[in-house]
Amino acid sequence: MKKQLYIVKIGGNVVDNLELMEGFINHFEKLPFPKLLVHGGGKLATRLSEKLGIESKLIEGRRITSKEELEIVTMVYAGKVNKELVAKLQAKKINALGFTGADANILVAKKRPVKEIDYGFVGDVEKVNTEFLTLCLENKIVPVCSAITHDGNGQLFNTNADTIAKELAVGLSENFEVNLMYCFEKKGVLLDANDDDSVIPIISETDFGELKAKEIISTGMIPKLTNSFEALQQGVTRVMIGNTSMLSLNNSTYTLLKL
Amino acid sequence: MKKQLYIVKIGGNVVDNLELMEGFINHFEKLPFPKLLVHGGGKLATRLSEKLGIESKLIEGRRITSKEELEIVTMVYAGKVNKELVAKLQAKKINALGFTGADANILVAKKRPVKEIDYGFVGDVEKVNTEFLTLCLENKIVPVCSAITHDGNGQLFNTNADTIAKELAVGLSENFEVNLMYCFEKKGVLLDANDDDSVIPIISETDFGELKAKEIISTGMIPKLTNSFEALQQGVTRVMIGNTSMLSLNNSTYTLLKL
Repeated sequence: MKKQLYIVKIGGNVVDNLELMEGFINHFEKLPFPKLLVHGGGKLATRLSEKLGIESKLIEGRRITSKEELEIVTMVYAGKVNKELVAKLQAKKINALGFTGADANILVAKKRPVKEIDYGFVGDVEKVNTEFLTLCLENKIVPVCSAITHDGNGQLFNTNADTIAKELAVGLSENFEVNLMYCFEKKGVLLDANDDDSVIPIISETDFGELKAKEIISTGMIPKLTNSFEALQQGVTRVMIGNTSMLSLNNSTYTLLKL
Repeated sequence: MKKQLYIVKIGGNVVDNLELMEGFINHFEKLPFPKLLVHGGGKLATRLSEKLGIESKLIEGRRITSKEELEIVTMVYAGKVNKELVAKLQAKKINALGFTGADANILVAKKRPVKEIDYGFVGDVEKVNTEFLTLCLENKIVPVCSAITHDGNGQLFNTNADTIAKELAVGLSENFEVNLMYCFEKKGVLLDANDDDSVIPIISETDFGELKAKEIISTGMIPKLTNSFEALQQGVTRVMIGNTSMLSLNNSTYTLLKL
């Protein structure tokens, strides 16, 4: 039987706020091994860009990544945010190891083709190499992934952290029963965007189609849910969406997705 | 018999200059496995500080590290420089893995005590955990270390890259015959600072004492040589100082240190 693996993705809001980050780490500590963390760091990158006089451009939540912006996201995600998380996890005696998709060649991506929009140095994941991650997980090391990939020819890319979490979850599902947990500021997917308690407990793929058609789900949630169903179709055991208290595993308020 | 391990430290001048960096990587590629790389990134951090209006303070080549400066060096060393090196090595099919001393708890440091000078968030290495590095080296992974350490309680530190190279070399000498190679812009330690060809081929500890007493060695070289002799005293097999062409191993122009 395969071992349960927990892959947790935390959003920009958590890493942006020291209090939320520490709350998250307290919850993440309780999650059983093996476990893996994926993070972005959006607003911090935007703030650094502003200070340096570089204009950040976002289209549908995706950053248009110029050469200068790529340097900034690499510094903020792989440097500042990643190393702060690693140091805080180490302080809890969790043997964290930070990485990007370039490290140990874990996530190989291709520059997103230019159609209507040129996203710049944004990469779409093409291949996940799980050998090294499996070695880490077997050695009770907790990998902490920042949302940077590479093309294998020396070029780094900015890649959406939700997508990276999905790709790692799919890749690792060959050796593990993967529980993919998308943590954000809400308790789950809401039926009414203005009512934080209107969490939908279970969403099937059919439900998702209906919720989209009726425009009940906010547009910002659609990529996350699309990623989730792709993960389930490609072998991930369980996908959950909720806030950090979901990590305690006995909290019932979150959204569980099923095919 | 222990395996030969090559630990190469590259200076700020190499990482600062794309041409030098690529030249270095071509030489590093030829060095046999297992091998490990240590880098700083000094001038890039200074430039980013300037752009952000933060004043960099250096005393005897050591950076006085305020909270803001620590963020900058973490972003530049562990983010930009480390990931660019990793991506460039991956392009050569070298399976590089970037890390700081916080990752996998490899380098535990203590804040430098305040005597005459308060260096701020500068850490002196207290403990090296080589278990994870050995696992990497045995799996043909090339660890790439940026000059950041942590205290194990959540605090990151700026630490001199020469010292980190020495500490890793000493720690790994338990399992390997370690060749520690300090790469910088000169061909070796010079007898005459104005003559690039006046490389001293071999320096013993006695020679070092004499060269210091006669003030032949430039003050900037003294910490590097002190580190080197400490490394030899603590079990490192060989220490070499020179430019990147030293990595071809058949180039005779470099300085070899011996006890």
